[in-house]
Amino acid sequence: MIGPVHHVGVAVRSLREALGDYRRLGLEPDLTEDVPSQGVRVAFLRAGAVRIELLESLKADGVIARFIERRGEGFHHLALATEEIRTEMTRLKQAGFELVDAEPRRGSQGRLVAFVHPRSLHGVLLELVEEPPKPTGRTQRD
Amino acid sequence: MIGPVHHVGVAVRSLREALGDYRRLGLEPDLTEDVPSQGVRVAFLRAGAVRIELLESLKADGVIARFIERRGEGFHHLALATEEIRTEMTRLKQAGFELVDAEPRRGSQGRLVAFVHPRSLHGVLLELVEEPPKPTGRTQRD
Repeated sequence: MIGPVHHVGVAVRSLREALGDYRRLGLEPDLTEDVPSQGVRVAFLRAGAVRIELLESLKADGVIARFIERRGEGFHHLALATEEIRTEMTRLKQAGFELVDAEPRRGSQGRLVAFVHPRSLHGVLLELVEEPPKPTGRTQRD
Repeated sequence: MIGPVHHVGVAVRSLREALGDYRRLGLEPDLTEDVPSQGVRVAFLRAGAVRIELLESLKADGVIARFIERRGEGFHHLALATEEIRTEMTRLKQAGFELVDAEPRRGSQGRLVAFVHPRSLHGVLLELVEEPPKPTGRTQRD
């Protein structure tokens, strides 16, 4: 099953400058991390149940650098949580969606992620993020 | 204070076609509405605490039609909730953000909304949505 919105990804030229502006807006980062496998440095801003992920390219020819060259800074992807990413990838492929990744890869904080091509979803680049179900806080002994 | 993410707005050519694809993805609309003041028909898809708003233009020269002509279908805006929109607009203006609206206007479901120009926020068109604080479910008599 495809789950709740996990985060919204935004491509920026400079994480430092963008963070300054988002701070003035009233949002603070709660995590900054390099994700070398994707050639990016990211910062997550907490905004309720959902986070805003700011992405800066670590290299001149990285995917985020090329995105900004083509489209300018701005919205890059929408991430939805899913409990079993491989099952979901198979289901979406069978439903006719074009997957960017044949296999899940490691994203921020070691989570398994995979992308659906924006051609398949009216211009929206969709990221699936595997999130194990949260414990409910109750056990059978409660 | 600026609040949690309220919704993510996505511009589409045809609401009917987009809804079909989002249904295949696993997301169902819980509200469809014409917002003539903004020249759009919208559908909200529930995805956890946040909703995805699909926007179709009601007229050929509407703001969403022109956006799609320029940029193609895809991400249009990010909406953050705020309890007092006028206070927040004043604060953001004083902090140097460029507001699109001098006064709040009525958006979907009659809520007061106002936009911050993407020039002010690294390519992100920001919508403020006034949402009164939710009752906590407790009263002083509990």
